[in-house]
Amino acid sequence: MTRRVVVVGADAAGMSAAHQALRVAKTRGEALEVVALEATDHTSYSACGLPYWIAGDVAGASDLVARTPEEHRARGVDLRTGATVTAVDTAARTVGHVDRSGATTELAYDELVLATGAGPVVPDWARDGDGTTYAGIGPVTNLDEGAAWLDRLERTGTRRVVVAGGSYIGLEMAEAALRRGREVTVVTRSRVMSNLDADVSDRIVTGLREAGVRVVEGSEVTGLTTEDGRVRSVESTAGSFACDLLVLALGVRPALEFLEGAGLETGESGGLRPDPRGAVAPGVWAAGDCCEVRHRLSDRWVHLPLGTHANKLGRVVGENLAGGDLSFDGVLGTAITRFVQDGVHLEVARTGLSTQEATDAGIDVVSLVTEGTTASGYMPEAAPITVKILGERGTRRLLGAQVVGGPGAGKRIDTVAACLWGGMRVDDLAWMDLSYAPPFATAWEIVSLAARRLAERL
Amino acid sequence: MTRRVVVVGADAAGMSAAHQALRVAKTRGEALEVVALEATDHTSYSACGLPYWIAGDVAGASDLVARTPEEHRARGVDLRTGATVTAVDTAARTVGHVDRSGATTELAYDELVLATGAGPVVPDWARDGDGTTYAGIGPVTNLDEGAAWLDRLERTGTRRVVVAGGSYIGLEMAEAALRRGREVTVVTRSRVMSNLDADVSDRIVTGLREAGVRVVEGSEVTGLTTEDGRVRSVESTAGSFACDLLVLALGVRPALEFLEGAGLETGESGGLRPDPRGAVAPGVWAAGDCCEVRHRLSDRWVHLPLGTHANKLGRVVGENLAGGDLSFDGVLGTAITRFVQDGVHLEVARTGLSTQEATDAGIDVVSLVTEGTTASGYMPEAAPITVKILGERGTRRLLGAQVVGGPGAGKRIDTVAACLWGGMRVDDLAWMDLSYAPPFATAWEIVSLAARRLAERL
Repeated sequence: MTRRVVVVGADAAGMSAAHQALRVAKTRGEALEVVALEATDHTSYSACGLPYWIAGDVAGASDLVARTPEEHRARGVDLRTGATVTAVDTAARTVGHVDRSGATTELAYDELVLATGAGPVVPDWARDGDGTTYAGIGPVTNLDEGAAWLDRLERTGTRRVVVAGGSYIGLEMAEAALRRGREVTVVTRSRVMSNLDADVSDRIVTGLREAGVRVVEGSEVTGLTTEDGRVRSVESTAGSFACDLLVLALGVRPALEFLEGAGLETGESGGLRPDPRGAVAPGVWAAGDCCEVRHRLSDRWVHLPLGTHANKLGRVVGENLAGGDLSFDGVLGTAITRFVQDGVHLEVARTGLSTQEATDAGIDVVSLVTEGTTASGYMPEAAPITVKILGERGTRRLLGAQVVGGPGAGKRIDTVAACLWGGMRVDDLAWMDLSYAPPFATAWEIVSLAARRLAERL
Repeated sequence: MTRRVVVVGADAAGMSAAHQALRVAKTRGEALEVVALEATDHTSYSACGLPYWIAGDVAGASDLVARTPEEHRARGVDLRTGATVTAVDTAARTVGHVDRSGATTELAYDELVLATGAGPVVPDWARDGDGTTYAGIGPVTNLDEGAAWLDRLERTGTRRVVVAGGSYIGLEMAEAALRRGREVTVVTRSRVMSNLDADVSDRIVTGLREAGVRVVEGSEVTGLTTEDGRVRSVESTAGSFACDLLVLALGVRPALEFLEGAGLETGESGGLRPDPRGAVAPGVWAAGDCCEVRHRLSDRWVHLPLGTHANKLGRVVGENLAGGDLSFDGVLGTAITRFVQDGVHLEVARTGLSTQEATDAGIDVVSLVTEGTTASGYMPEAAPITVKILGERGTRRLLGAQVVGGPGAGKRIDTVAACLWGGMRVDDLAWMDLSYAPPFATAWEIVSLAARRLAERL
């Protein structure tokens, strides 16, 4: 008997699950039917690439698409686009969806994969009476929204761009707007890159200002002034800012409205909490931005909507629902971005816990900021780099790191991430055998040096 | 009573030991006299930086000097330059040296630190009847030799440069000579970068040839033809190569001639074998290029003359001889270099064991080469990268990695090195939470992807 897998959402998590399930089933000689329901016309695209497309680095939207609907179908997935899921009955094992004509279909499933991702936070003040956002305002979470931003920045003569939100997408859109010749203001409720400690994020603010960005921290956008349906200014707790275009970079929330009443438990963020095998209920699996993930250091659930976790958990789900055995062993909170404009080149990365996160988790954290260079000081490649290392008093356990610096700075975070994955001590990072040659590092590699200095204070 | 420490050799290892000993003694309230004997006039310089100085990247020799003799003296080291050590008596705890006038002095010590480094291999055929090398020929291991090469390449009209030796310094000098407008031939006994597997080093050969370097592998230089004391051609097992300048990049050997008869045990390379605390005998310590180091994966002694190990082991020695407690926990064989010229940009790095090294150590090794990109394929930053991962059959233990690729490729080796340091499995590297954003990586970071592919075959 052919088992039927229904996958809801055809982006990274869902399609990783679908193809891995098909691969495993083929290996095991099992016939598996995989149906994927996707509300939009787009599959497997890089949402992370949107700011670079908008900035002009990427030739076209199709470059951002890893696999088209046709390619998924050619590889054996029964992909149905324009199919919006409306209800799930986990007892009867059925899922209902409407197509674009408004017709409703109910599908029986043996295994259900929930991979609907997350949708942008759009405050009420951003919408007019009809519930649509005012002209010149929008988030940047999918290809259609990306295309709208490309259009706004390529074809209109607008001058003043306000970015509401100072995290990854906010920073990336600030860069994109600068590169498109706009005046840019970033307004953020707490701090720019608030998942870094303030003594590190301050360096990013300095860089943004050097590049001409107006940065307003500690200020919440509370409303708009509009004229003929277009935004004219942004009202905030720090005053009013003239504004032709407003980027909504206020975060995302798990897109799981259709699960209301389905009896599946969700966490504080509204995200599902799959077990290490990716299961949320008998016959029901979940992966991607609609899920929370387990943080290995705090042992807490966190909502970290990233393609890396989506790909991995999706693959785990696909493997397991087809009879294999893989586990998703949690996350470290690793992330990276950059801000490059007008002679400023800042790579920004973090992994593990910040001081706040560690403290919230009841951990006695000690940390230290170390300044250095990305290459030997006498080399033309040498750029400043700031490394903050965090460790636990007593156990000497490594807790995390934050990096801001020039070319080559950011990816150093992976060295620390690997140490965290292995549960290593600050001393391990301080003394391990890392690579050195003058164009690449100092003889005491800066992340090791930073760890050594912290180790001496632990 | 003031203890006297005598340090022989005032470069990375010796001076790390000297200053760390002074720091620890100060903290403990102990009076410590540190005498350093240095045969040359130079201290604490970057030998790794010589090729970049010669190529024109570094303004002057002084930029390569981390600390001058005066700076060492100002920080409390009784540094004596021009002092060549001639004999050590470990029973009497004395060390004899001659100064430039030829006068001999004998010093008593409580603790002796041997840090004389390594000297270049200079075959007999490179020397004339007086024992000096012919004009136009020389190694590249210290500031004087570097200055000679700078002079040869800046001021003479020579055209054809032959580099004997295809390892790190050979590659770097090939680049330097190319950048100085020369025709370059690299002649190497085995392969270019022979501590990489052939399927990886072949990619380097391809890059060298694209940049115009003539590469002759499997050929040993056996002699010279000279004219008026200058080299005119190099004779090799692969024939004769016209040659105006010949770089001797044939490796180095521990510089320990003065220890003859001192009764200290040395390994196959001629290097000392300090224990994890840096001791080689009661009251005698050693660090740096005159030592072998313990390889954590093969559990064998290896001679890896690198500044990284010199700095670390030197610091360990200084700490311990002053009464502290640190250990040097071995090496992974991590190394990095690059070759950049004429549109070719190759970063080359390795860590852990090669296939040959693993096999020699009796380990059942499985490996796989994976091709990818350093950034998301749609980004202008995306460059090709080749990652070879090696693991142990059965245990699934990670054994090593080799990387060749464009900008950003090389330093990825540190992620693997961290995993090796922690004794992790191939699966750990495959699934850990590494950083991703389009300018920096693909969503499955290439080193993880390479590990995942290998894990599926283990």
